[in-house]
Amino acid sequence: MKKFVDDPAQFVRDMEEGIYLANQDALKWIPEFNIIVRADLPEDKVLIMQGSGSGHEPAHVMAVGPGMLDAACPGAVFAAPPMDYVLECTRLLRNPKGILHLINNYQGDRMAWDMAKEMAEAEDPDLAIGVVIINDDVAVQDSLYTVGRRGVAGNFFVIKAVGAASDEGKSLEELVALGEKVNGWTRSMGIALTSCTPPAKGTPIFEIGEDEIEVGVGIHGEPGRRRDKIRPATEIMDEVFEAVCTDLPFQAGDRVAVMINGLGGTPISELYLLYGLAAKKCAEHGLVIAKNYVGNYCTSLEMAGFSLTLSKLDEEIEGYLNAPASIPIRVF
Amino acid sequence: MKKFVDDPAQFVRDMEEGIYLANQDALKWIPEFNIIVRADLPEDKVLIMQGSGSGHEPAHVMAVGPGMLDAACPGAVFAAPPMDYVLECTRLLRNPKGILHLINNYQGDRMAWDMAKEMAEAEDPDLAIGVVIINDDVAVQDSLYTVGRRGVAGNFFVIKAVGAASDEGKSLEELVALGEKVNGWTRSMGIALTSCTPPAKGTPIFEIGEDEIEVGVGIHGEPGRRRDKIRPATEIMDEVFEAVCTDLPFQAGDRVAVMINGLGGTPISELYLLYGLAAKKCAEHGLVIAKNYVGNYCTSLEMAGFSLTLSKLDEEIEGYLNAPASIPIRVF
Repeated sequence: MKKFVDDPAQFVRDMEEGIYLANQDALKWIPEFNIIVRADLPEDKVLIMQGSGSGHEPAHVMAVGPGMLDAACPGAVFAAPPMDYVLECTRLLRNPKGILHLINNYQGDRMAWDMAKEMAEAEDPDLAIGVVIINDDVAVQDSLYTVGRRGVAGNFFVIKAVGAASDEGKSLEELVALGEKVNGWTRSMGIALTSCTPPAKGTPIFEIGEDEIEVGVGIHGEPGRRRDKIRPATEIMDEVFEAVCTDLPFQAGDRVAVMINGLGGTPISELYLLYGLAAKKCAEHGLVIAKNYVGNYCTSLEMAGFSLTLSKLDEEIEGYLNAPASIPIRVF
Repeated sequence: MKKFVDDPAQFVRDMEEGIYLANQDALKWIPEFNIIVRADLPEDKVLIMQGSGSGHEPAHVMAVGPGMLDAACPGAVFAAPPMDYVLECTRLLRNPKGILHLINNYQGDRMAWDMAKEMAEAEDPDLAIGVVIINDDVAVQDSLYTVGRRGVAGNFFVIKAVGAASDEGKSLEELVALGEKVNGWTRSMGIALTSCTPPAKGTPIFEIGEDEIEVGVGIHGEPGRRRDKIRPATEIMDEVFEAVCTDLPFQAGDRVAVMINGLGGTPISELYLLYGLAAKKCAEHGLVIAKNYVGNYCTSLEMAGFSLTLSKLDEEIEGYLNAPASIPIRVF
C-alpha cells in the first residue's frame, strides 16, 4: 500500500487535524468523536449535521461552514459513525430551533443515527430532530450495505439547499420538506475504472481487470449493474446519462443542475471532457442546465471513476444553490 | 489504458470543449489554437497569458478568469504549445498597455514563447510584451527537458499576484517586477507514488515499483533526487519540507503561503493529512502561515503524489493573494 499516511488506524484523526489546522478561524475539532463543527455556531437557526463513513472527502467533513453543514461526525473509512459520535454531535448542536440529521441510506448509518436520535430525544424531550434520508443512486435497488437505494453525490444538493434555507430562518419542518424535495428530484450513477484501498485494510476493496469497468459502482465498491469492458467516453456517458435521466424521469424543458463528480483518482481534465458529453446529452433531451458542478464532491478514496448527478430545479431550489456558502474546500 | 476519453489524439480539444460548455458566459474557445480566453476581455489593463503542456489541469487552462489569466493556449499533453498557438493568442490580446507572458522554465516552452514574442513584436513594433519565467522546483538543477530549475505549482502564486495587480492598473514593467519577486520567493518539491499515462501515448511515462516513491519528481515524470521506499507521511514531509525551506532559505518570522498540491490521483483526505504535517513544520521553523492552499493546482494527469510549495509574503503580495478572482474551478 502506497499512501501518504502515518498510522493507518489514525488516518481519519490525522486528516481531521489537517482540516482543523488549515481552518482554525472557522472550525473547531473534537477528536474523541471525529467532530468538525463551525467555530461560529449560529444560535438562531436550525442546525444541520451529517456524518457517514470517511473516505468520501470532501463529503462530508469538508462541507462544514456557513450555508452548508454546521457540523459533521464521520466514522472510520467506509464505516458509519458510531452511535456515540452522532449523539455527542447532536448534544453539541442542541438548540431551540431544532436539528436536522442528514443521513445517507446505508443500514449502518441508519442504525447509528436512529439510536442516537432516540437517545438525544430521551435526554431532552423538548429537542426537535428532523431527518432527511438521501438515496440518489439509481444503479441498483438493494446493495451490500443498503436496503433500497444508496446515497451518493446527490448529498451535495441536499446540503446546499437546506444549508441556505436554514440561514433564511426556515423551520425544521420546512427544511425536512425541502430536503426531501431535493432528494426526490436528484438522481446519480457512477462508473469505476479502478478499486481503492482503505488505509487500515491495506488491500483493495475489490478486484477489477486491466480493461474492465464497473457500471453503477457504489462509493464503497459495491457492485453495480454489471462489469463491462472499457469503452469510449461517449458510449459510457450515453449509458450513464440514460440511466439517470429516465429514472425520475427528467423531461424536456426541465431546468437542472448537472454534476460530474470525480471518485478521487480521476483527473479534472477527464471530468471536464465528461461534462462536455453530458452537456450535449442534456441538449438532446431538452434539459436546460442552470448550474454545473465539475470536480470531486463525493469520492471513494483514490478510486478512478466518476458519477453523473442530475438534479431537477424549481425557483426555490435554484435560489438556494446560488446562495453564498463557504467551506474548507476552496481555490483561493 | 483505462481513461474517460474518446479519440486520444483529441483529448485536449475534448477537454477544452467541456471547459467551454461549462463556462459559456465567462469564456471563449478557439479550438484551432487550443485557446481559452475571457469572454469579457478587459480593454484597460495589461493582459496576461500562459500555456504550457496540457495534463497539468487545472493549470493553466482552467486558471482563466477575472483576477487570474486573461487567456491560455496549452499544447498537447506534456508538450509545449506550438509557436503559432502562442502567436495567435498574443495577437488576440494585443492592446496598448501590453501583454505579460508567463512561461514555465522548460526548453520547449522557452523556444515556442521566444519565437512567438519575436514574431508578434515584428508584426507590431508598438506592442509591449513582458516575460516572467517560473522555476520554483528545488528538486534538481537541470532536468530532462530543462536547463536550470523546472516550473511547477508555484505558478499559481505568480498568476494570482500579477492577475490582481493588473486589475489594479499596474504597468507591464511593474507586473514583470512583481512576478519575478513572487517567483524568487517561491519554492516547491514533489513526491510521486505512481506514474501516469498520457492518453495519446497509452503507456506510463515511467516505471515505479509497488513499494517505491520518486523524491523530487517533475510534473512530466522527470527523475528527482532519488528513488526511495514508501515511508510514513511524517518522514516524507520532513524531507520535502527541509528541502524547500532551506533553499530560499525561509527564516523564522517570515509570513508564508503554504500549498499542498495534489498531482492528480491523490485523495484530498491525504492532502489534508499532509497539510497538518506541513503546518507543524512551519511552527517548528517559526514560519507564520498567512494563507493555505490544499487541493489539485498543478497536476500530472492521474499521478498519485503531492508537492509542497512555500511562498514568502510581504504586504503587497499578501494583498494580491487575498484579492477577488474567479476561474472555472469552483465548488459552488
